Amino acid sequence: MANQIFFNGGFHPETEKLLSVQDRGLCFGDGLFEVIRCVGGRFLLFSQHLARMRESAAFLRMEFPYGDRELLDACAELSRRNGVQEGELYLELTRGEAPRYHLFPHGVRPNFFMMLNPLRAMPENAWSAGVATVTYPDIRGGCCRLKTINLLPNVLGKQFAKEHGAFEALFYRDGPQGRYLSEGPSSTIFAVKDGALLTPDLDNILPGTTRKHVLALAREDGMAVREGRLPLETFLGADEAFISSTVSEVMPVTQVDGAPVGAGRRGPVTERLQKLYAGFKAAHLEG
Amino acid sequence: MANQIFFNGGFHPETEKLLSVQDRGLCFGDGLFEVIRCVGGRFLLFSQHLARMRESAAFLRMEFPYGDRELLDACAELSRRNGVQEGELYLELTRGEAPRYHLFPHGVRPNFFMMLNPLRAMPENAWSAGVATVTYPDIRGGCCRLKTINLLPNVLGKQFAKEHGAFEALFYRDGPQGRYLSEGPSSTIFAVKDGALLTPDLDNILPGTTRKHVLALAREDGMAVREGRLPLETFLGADEAFISSTVSEVMPVTQVDGAPVGAGRRGPVTERLQKLYAGFKAAHLEG
Repeated sequence: MANQIFFNGGFHPETEKLLSVQDRGLCFGDGLFEVIRCVGGRFLLFSQHLARMRESAAFLRMEFPYGDRELLDACAELSRRNGVQEGELYLELTRGEAPRYHLFPHGVRPNFFMMLNPLRAMPENAWSAGVATVTYPDIRGGCCRLKTINLLPNVLGKQFAKEHGAFEALFYRDGPQGRYLSEGPSSTIFAVKDGALLTPDLDNILPGTTRKHVLALAREDGMAVREGRLPLETFLGADEAFISSTVSEVMPVTQVDGAPVGAGRRGPVTERLQKLYAGFKAAHLEG
Repeated sequence: MANQIFFNGGFHPETEKLLSVQDRGLCFGDGLFEVIRCVGGRFLLFSQHLARMRESAAFLRMEFPYGDRELLDACAELSRRNGVQEGELYLELTRGEAPRYHLFPHGVRPNFFMMLNPLRAMPENAWSAGVATVTYPDIRGGCCRLKTINLLPNVLGKQFAKEHGAFEALFYRDGPQGRYLSEGPSSTIFAVKDGALLTPDLDNILPGTTRKHVLALAREDGMAVREGRLPLETFLGADEAFISSTVSEVMPVTQVDGAPVGAGRRGPVTERLQKLYAGFKAAHLEG
């Protein structure tokens, strides 16, 4: 039986035809998304993800006509119907359906849906052995602080990574002081140098939910943390590196463009943060 | 009765639910579009627009399983069913429907649809009196040469323009030599200075179909044409200005950010190009 999804208040098979060609997500990328980790049938930082979607929707003047409680109940129902205890929840909000003109239409109801799938297949031992990455030009635009569905550059980055034997791409930009890293197509980038944790500051990148908590855990643990421009050169010379995201959590990066990062294996700071993050996760499940 | 559209080979009401939430256009902006002018039930430069979509699809490794003749026949049928003789045809191709992971899925069939609507309402006398524009930061990314559906920046630009009493936005970028114009959210930008026609070169902008023919018409008419970086300052000091697109054709720009461009009215070169373009149009209808 096809997986069930939540769509505009009801439950439907995921393959059911539910949208017309007039959806503005489909025609304009006029939509937002979130990904939330499902752990033991509960949902990690659910309200924080919802708050981010709600804020971005307000910025883009889209309606978001649901409350957290209502959606959390729907998520529990999805978990039950799909038999998913360990998974990833995908939420999307589009401005709704209207004849295709750029300007914000009046009086349309947004389309909102949630899909809950089992956790995607990940490379074996990714969290212990680490993953390879490749650099890729950051061909996205100036809206990266919003989690919009304008993701074609991210798709191209991920596809490039896969075809070069890597798990994730690292977007780079060129500035007056040289090349620096921004983020991955679906992750935040971290480096460890001389015991300090380095990560790009929130300059046209997503204010990642996992990012925020990894930084807080590091600070609470007494680590020096520097948010700022992260030159590629600094990253290449780091002692350790990792990426973070809802699904990747704290994932060691052991290779970039075919060369080892640091000792080419998971480092002790990364491992320490993985342990701290595991404890954090257990304490922040909702539903 | 609802307008009819062409979708994956058949005809449907435009509001019919035809897509699932797994469409990659909806989740990733993984799609392309074209807009073609319908004139007297025939289609302007149909095969050139189709060729651009086909080339971009090949670049993105999407299938495009239709021939020109087949689609032109479907367009004739849309014109008949919708009773549209003067209109705009919208075409969209997405990679298809698959579980939501960034990587190109295997074995999916693309979604392709065409909508034919009456020509949108335009400001009265726009082509004779000209239109106002406002500058807006070019917050798009590095894929502007492809006509993708990652259009949220374009939507924001158009909306900004409308809310500032303007018809179109003019995207600007900041370079080492200062601020320059790239294109509009749905148009190419032209300036006329000392009899020469100036327009941005194809540096991360759309190779516009109308743009190409306007430039050819100007050259054939003996005009000096310069494609290159178009500094905002040059534009502000131009004798005349206009924008071009499938729908706007050759539309005089008489104001930018509240100040007049040139004499603040349609100039003679613009008017000349409008006449040439009208003749060109009549000679390039297909179907």
